Amino acid sequence: MNFASDNTSGAHPRIMEALAAANEGHVPSYGADPRTQAVEARLREIFEAPEARVYLVATGSAANALSCAVLTDPWGAIFCHRNAHIEEDECGAPEFYTGGSKLVLVDGADAKMDPGALQRTIAHTGRGGIHNVQRGMVSITNATEAGAVYTPAEVSALSAIARQFELPVHMDGARFANALIAAGCTPAEMTWKAGVDVLSFGGTKNGCMGVEAVVIFDPKRAWEFELRRKRGGHLFSKHRFLAAQMQAYLEGDLWLSLATHANEMAAKLSSGIVEAPGAKLVHPTQANAVFASLPRGAHRRAQGAGAYYYLWPFDQSLEGAPEELLAARLVCSWATTPDEIDVFLGYLNGGSTPG
Amino acid sequence: MNFASDNTSGAHPRIMEALAAANEGHVPSYGADPRTQAVEARLREIFEAPEARVYLVATGSAANALSCAVLTDPWGAIFCHRNAHIEEDECGAPEFYTGGSKLVLVDGADAKMDPGALQRTIAHTGRGGIHNVQRGMVSITNATEAGAVYTPAEVSALSAIARQFELPVHMDGARFANALIAAGCTPAEMTWKAGVDVLSFGGTKNGCMGVEAVVIFDPKRAWEFELRRKRGGHLFSKHRFLAAQMQAYLEGDLWLSLATHANEMAAKLSSGIVEAPGAKLVHPTQANAVFASLPRGAHRRAQGAGAYYYLWPFDQSLEGAPEELLAARLVCSWATTPDEIDVFLGYLNGGSTPG
Amino acid sequence: MNFASDNTSGAHPRIMEALAAANEGHVPSYGADPRTQAVEARLREIFEAPEARVYLVATGSAANALSCAVLTDPWGAIFCHRNAHIEEDECGAPEFYTGGSKLVLVDGADAKMDPGALQRTIAHTGRGGIHNVQRGMVSITNATEAGAVYTPAEVSALSAIARQFELPVHMDGARFANALIAAGCTPAEMTWKAGVDVLSFGGTKNGCMGVEAVVIFDPKRAWEFELRRKRGGHLFSKHRFLAAQMQAYLEGDLWLSLATHANEMAAKLSSGIVEAPGAKLVHPTQANAVFASLPRGAHRRAQGAGAYYYLWPFDQSLEGAPEELLAARLVCSWATTPDEIDVFLGYLNGGSTPG
Amino acid sequence: MNFASDNTSGAHPRIMEALAAANEGHVPSYGADPRTQAVEARLREIFEAPEARVYLVATGSAANALSCAVLTDPWGAIFCHRNAHIEEDECGAPEFYTGGSKLVLVDGADAKMDPGALQRTIAHTGRGGIHNVQRGMVSITNATEAGAVYTPAEVSALSAIARQFELPVHMDGARFANALIAAGCTPAEMTWKAGVDVLSFGGTKNGCMGVEAVVIFDPKRAWEFELRRKRGGHLFSKHRFLAAQMQAYLEGDLWLSLATHANEMAAKLSSGIVEAPGAKLVHPTQANAVFASLPRGAHRRAQGAGAYYYLWPFDQSLEGAPEELLAARLVCSWATTPDEIDVFLGYLNGGSTPG
Repeated sequence: MNFASDNTSGAHPRIMEALAAANEGHVPSYGADPRTQAVEARLREIFEAPEARVYLVATGSAANALSCAVLTDPWGAIFCHRNAHIEEDECGAPEFYTGGSKLVLVDGADAKMDPGALQRTIAHTGRGGIHNVQRGMVSITNATEAGAVYTPAEVSALSAIARQFELPVHMDGARFANALIAAGCTPAEMTWKAGVDVLSFGGTKNGCMGVEAVVIFDPKRAWEFELRRKRGGHLFSKHRFLAAQMQAYLEGDLWLSLATHANEMAAKLSSGIVEAPGAKLVHPTQANAVFASLPRGAHRRAQGAGAYYYLWPFDQSLEGAPEELLAARLVCSWATTPDEIDVFLGYLNGGSTPG
Repeated sequence: MNFASDNTSGAHPRIMEALAAANEGHVPSYGADPRTQAVEARLREIFEAPEARVYLVATGSAANALSCAVLTDPWGAIFCHRNAHIEEDECGAPEFYTGGSKLVLVDGADAKMDPGALQRTIAHTGRGGIHNVQRGMVSITNATEAGAVYTPAEVSALSAIARQFELPVHMDGARFANALIAAGCTPAEMTWKAGVDVLSFGGTKNGCMGVEAVVIFDPKRAWEFELRRKRGGHLFSKHRFLAAQMQAYLEGDLWLSLATHANEMAAKLSSGIVEAPGAKLVHPTQANAVFASLPRGAHRRAQGAGAYYYLWPFDQSLEGAPEELLAARLVCSWATTPDEIDVFLGYLNGGSTPG
Repeated sequence: MNFASDNTSGAHPRIMEALAAANEGHVPSYGADPRTQAVEARLREIFEAPEARVYLVATGSAANALSCAVLTDPWGAIFCHRNAHIEEDECGAPEFYTGGSKLVLVDGADAKMDPGALQRTIAHTGRGGIHNVQRGMVSITNATEAGAVYTPAEVSALSAIARQFELPVHMDGARFANALIAAGCTPAEMTWKAGVDVLSFGGTKNGCMGVEAVVIFDPKRAWEFELRRKRGGHLFSKHRFLAAQMQAYLEGDLWLSLATHANEMAAKLSSGIVEAPGAKLVHPTQANAVFASLPRGAHRRAQGAGAYYYLWPFDQSLEGAPEELLAARLVCSWATTPDEIDVFLGYLNGGSTPG
Repeated sequence: MNFASDNTSGAHPRIMEALAAANEGHVPSYGADPRTQAVEARLREIFEAPEARVYLVATGSAANALSCAVLTDPWGAIFCHRNAHIEEDECGAPEFYTGGSKLVLVDGADAKMDPGALQRTIAHTGRGGIHNVQRGMVSITNATEAGAVYTPAEVSALSAIARQFELPVHMDGARFANALIAAGCTPAEMTWKAGVDVLSFGGTKNGCMGVEAVVIFDPKRAWEFELRRKRGGHLFSKHRFLAAQMQAYLEGDLWLSLATHANEMAAKLSSGIVEAPGAKLVHPTQANAVFASLPRGAHRRAQGAGAYYYLWPFDQSLEGAPEELLAARLVCSWATTPDEIDVFLGYLNGGSTPG
């Protein structure tokens, strides 16, 4: 019963098979191999974006921080939600890669930026001319850190505001597949058709070993991205092993199947929780994560039985927090099983820890 | 016949098996898993350095640039050979990670820093006080970019100069195993006993998929390293897959066996070349790479037959360069076979390209 | 009637005389001249801090950004008020000089950090270990951007919180003299005795041409400061001209006299305003600036008569804003005269613009 | 007898008078004052460049480092002479402002880049694509650190090479006036007509208190420059005092008169030295500095008599160096008098130190 994060799971067997298959013979390094080219072509097809450029990196922080660095100058503000991953969980990687940009924080429920708040925040920033940090870019996390999903219409609404100020738009799609399944739209509809310029397309959390694709819809930013990736130490020499993962991930829509499963598991978990005594959701369950406040006793039974998950917010302690604030973040992945969920729900419903 | 680089080879089968074995169940992410701890412990044993801290990253550029960033301030000069990998092949990654350090270049044959030249260069730098870049650190590449190897005594001589100026010493060991086999010494003798403070311990080029260990002999620099690694986007979430590679690499001294093989292949190739008509070495063959000038005709026959390798220096062209300067860089790896070498030597000796 | 800022005034005649006097003969450059040494000694006396080191720069942004850079690592958060000058008015200079620190914003009335809010904000930051930006430093602006003044006891309260988390404390004293006069304490009581580690001691706004002193109470940070200053291009070659200004500024307590005058002018202006029809203060008047909401008609009369000042907040427009929000920021300086104030108050009270 | 540097002299009386005159009344800050606009217009006239933008800063390091930052990306090499001021005397300011560019050093006599050497160095850099630092910009110091002067034709030759590689050209003109007088050409001929894109136009060393103008011939780089200047803490609030200096410096061609004088003093000194026993020039005297090897006894007599100057190179010591290497750097300024020179020459010729 491990709901700590989708990154505590391993890689899907088809990813592992692809790695083994890629391990044959000598292959040009640094991305000059045929697999890398095939992956780039395949992502262009999937995104209906024949001009797009695609780059692979191994971590989500690298994908996000490098994307920001090509979209804003050092003096440009990055507008993002107060609880965005780039703000809260990357130890300042965007600041490092951009050369010192300021993340300017926008409010909104469920870690989704409220359009009015975004509008006001951008308008307020840079109004003092040379004395202020300038308006730089907008970054949208989809699915959000609170498990919510922006629809294409919602992304468009934010992008339209960005466009009004001539700002480019980044989407942190570490859980892009989960968002896409939830929204029931095409990759193009969720991204460039909705005004997104650069996408961090996540693979790691959804069944890969460690690979993310940065999809740059406007090719004029591409060479700069390559240079920043190399300079950041993120250009792999044995690049075929990044490409092989991504190739298998896309092959036969594996990425969509895995995300569908993870979302279904979260839905099942969420449905069970709302029926458990004293439990209630603190964010709607839209993708693969459930955020629910649970009675202290339920936490104790579940944790006593070996369930792994984080309290939410992260700095809670089981003993210290007021009971009504004692929420759990429960993340499902491609590897989560219905049985795990049933066992977990059993504890919430009072099942005692097995001796 | 691929001698382009040791990174055109794949991963050794035991590395692949270890990855498959590591892919079981849920495991804590970001390096909190038992495999990562085991790897750290094992490297401490191998280096006879119970206080050392070990961090895994996926690329050599990351290992080197992060190492430099913990060893020097932004205003500190990094003393290294004119042909060091950190100077010539990382697109300024050390400058990026350090916040703008200056690489101050030292001469010496076979890409090895001459001790006198190092002494003079350090003494000359920073003599003007506040107006100059200060003395920061020394970085030694072993084996060098020209295929030569520093002995422990030679490393000690350079470290002693660094110590005289109170500078820390980094070793870029992307090909550390090859250097160690060539020098016939222990890992401790090649590093901390010879005055090295931080080592980039390469795995990728010598049979791994993508993993390098940074071994920090002085633990007080460790937490800063962790922060810089995270901030650089180099902390893997599914960290077990870095650890599994390194574990298998160390297990049963696989790393030493693979390097021994690669060095032997280079020795065989080198011996053959010196007997070929018109061929001669331009650097001594000490590790796994051979640098040899070859007649234009020999190049044509070999390349015509599909042999892959770079001309040396890299900016040569087969038609443009004067014949006496037309050298080849031929790199052997764990995957190079004696047969490949025999075939290659055949072309040098006049064998015609098969129709 | 210019209340736009204290930096629209010129330099006090005694500053100009000192510059002329310093312009004799050849003098060692870069701060090795006797005047610079005398200034350093004098500031040590004034601050009762025999170990302190003093550095002169020409702008407040340089003083602040360099101070931050020696007090926090790039991954350290700078805790400051949401309306601090370093957050709102320096185009990201602290981010640039620190190498990408994040300014984490604290609330509180009158641009003063509320101690409880500071405590909670620090406690919340960095709780997630390696994934978060770490706790770096606290920066206190005194007097604040809203014209309020921290007492030594209030500074101590904030410093005590900083100390609890082992964080150093910076004071942005661009208007230090005004704050000191308002608080009625000694320089030492306002700074190191209240837990301040580094002070930006302003001269420019209070009658100098362009000079600020950075007073570093802990000498071990001094050499790093010197290097960062030089590297930032802020080490003056004809340094005597910075020293001469500061010397004259301190001589005979000129700095205190000028600030006393500016504060008195603000008090006079403030007293007049609260008696004008429809006017009221939006921040208490404690130093040399008055923040008051005025009827639209009063604004029109005053501006029509040539009074210069900014609406507050800066992005207001006289026509667009709701009348009750239409505040003015009115800054007095050493050069403000009682007459100017009387004339200005006349317009508030309905005096018509002279033909 | 102070020949240590042109920055040990004070400011010319007309500069001081201009500062006093500028100190009247309230004036808009941050460069929005009429004097600043007049200076910009005047420099456009002087340079026959109606589109040019002009920015004032207080130090040469700021002028140079900010100029580099708008001309190259962080991964771009800055090609300059091995002894350029930006390489040797700014503590890495260009690296700091550019975000970590690499200065790639070019050889040539008298600190002038040899065109062939520049061509080869650029051609060699970046030939390895993504793995290398890219070609960024060329920086030419005129007059050079060795007192030599590039003619317009020589500048054009270097610029033509830069253009071949599509690189912009910066001129470090800390001693621009001295170079111009020596070359006998117009400001336009020495700069944009010869291919220079951005000029650091020095005032400080040639009689100002502390002001340099950055002349940007291509206005599209201007706004970025403004942002970088502010972010670097180099935008003065009481900006009129920078403008006043520059205005007086240009008024009635004061700048040219002062440089003419300084060059004449150097010529007189140089002529005297070549006739002194055992003395000879180590660089030709073309601007305002003389580099001459002198017998140890001559050094002793002159220094004993209170002559100030640096040995050359800077790390020499009077006792330690071999006599034939014991050179002096003797810099003349607007303030140097014929009498000083005669007295100095007297000591070289054996005159004893007055009791």
